[in-house]
Amino acid sequence: MSEVRIIEVKQNILANNNKQAGKLRENLRQQKTFLLNLMSSPGSGKTSVILGTIALLRDKLSIGVMEADIDSAVDAEKIAAVGIPAVQLRTGGLCHLDSSMTAQGLKELNPANLDLVIIENVGNLVCPAEFDTGAVKNAMILSVPEGDDKPLKYPLMFSTCDALLINKIDYLTIADFDVEAVKKRVTALNPDIKIFEVSAKTGQGMQVWADWLYQEVLAWTRS
Amino acid sequence: MSEVRIIEVKQNILANNNKQAGKLRENLRQQKTFLLNLMSSPGSGKTSVILGTIALLRDKLSIGVMEADIDSAVDAEKIAAVGIPAVQLRTGGLCHLDSSMTAQGLKELNPANLDLVIIENVGNLVCPAEFDTGAVKNAMILSVPEGDDKPLKYPLMFSTCDALLINKIDYLTIADFDVEAVKKRVTALNPDIKIFEVSAKTGQGMQVWADWLYQEVLAWTRS
Repeated sequence: MSEVRIIEVKQNILANNNKQAGKLRENLRQQKTFLLNLMSSPGSGKTSVILGTIALLRDKLSIGVMEADIDSAVDAEKIAAVGIPAVQLRTGGLCHLDSSMTAQGLKELNPANLDLVIIENVGNLVCPAEFDTGAVKNAMILSVPEGDDKPLKYPLMFSTCDALLINKIDYLTIADFDVEAVKKRVTALNPDIKIFEVSAKTGQGMQVWADWLYQEVLAWTRS
Repeated sequence: MSEVRIIEVKQNILANNNKQAGKLRENLRQQKTFLLNLMSSPGSGKTSVILGTIALLRDKLSIGVMEADIDSAVDAEKIAAVGIPAVQLRTGGLCHLDSSMTAQGLKELNPANLDLVIIENVGNLVCPAEFDTGAVKNAMILSVPEGDDKPLKYPLMFSTCDALLINKIDYLTIADFDVEAVKKRVTALNPDIKIFEVSAKTGQGMQVWADWLYQEVLAWTRS
């Protein structure tokens, strides 16, 4: 067995974004709009989860969506197709959204008329965790095919989020994925995180997630 | 159907890395070492593909591996466990490797004694595509559960790579994934890319990929 050498390589490219994010959140409170920032790897099912959430909450809340992508508008088109206001933010190569970009997108959605705005962040488990978008709550998706070791590799993302959706649980039949190990790894990083086991494809578990989100929206808009 | 609005949000955070990468590549040529940069989303199977590639090529080539991760050393430990020199690069939060980080890792591996060094880049389809690591060739993995729309959303990554491995083809039985559509989308971006359909888990297709890589290493080390 060869020896593993560990080398710390580091570079600081982060700008201070926190002040503007706090101001954005204060505006949202005054407008009684809840902003959810949803993050994950590419292909974890963000758009499908958002569509499932819309289906469960659209009778109770007015909802808008901001889709962030490097390129293309395919996700915003899927949201708009079900009659929900959607804006596509093209980051032109950038790997995350920051609060100034969120503010640009919100302006287009007219958030004063919306109870809930969902950001689908760029598919990436690294950079989006580092930038406060101004959201009221942060949620992330880990899908079963990605593997149960991800909390070990991307600890900041799992530490930053208020909620974790373990998606594609219909894949548990063929994937080597230990749900209990994930829960243990995640709660070690973040004891207060809410964990939901869902399949956006089959709908399993989605009602429990939607109920939690609904209560969070009510708590914010009535505060 | 609501209208989709498209807003261009942009910020430039890239430093010029190309000169140093070219110099690193020139050193590798003199040392007759081939450097492969392997990129993908988190959980696409980079480590499993590397382990499968090692098994097929270790009798013909001397191999080393550099594992890049935000945190943890789990991947380098898996490589070292099969007796291959491995170094773990911890980026301390950074989302990609650049050529100076690669150079730091290479120094530890003593590349003059190695025919092939494989970089497992940070799991991310965005940032690693923007930074030349100094590698001779770039390869990426797209795994079936991630979905066939990824070339539309991460065009730079698919444009940058010399080879694409479509991994986890054993999931095709339950995933909604159109292999031919992916090939069409990818070759539209990058007509010269080599595409391999593999399952690192079952071994299917891995020999074809390993043969291609072997020929590339020979061409470089004998040039």
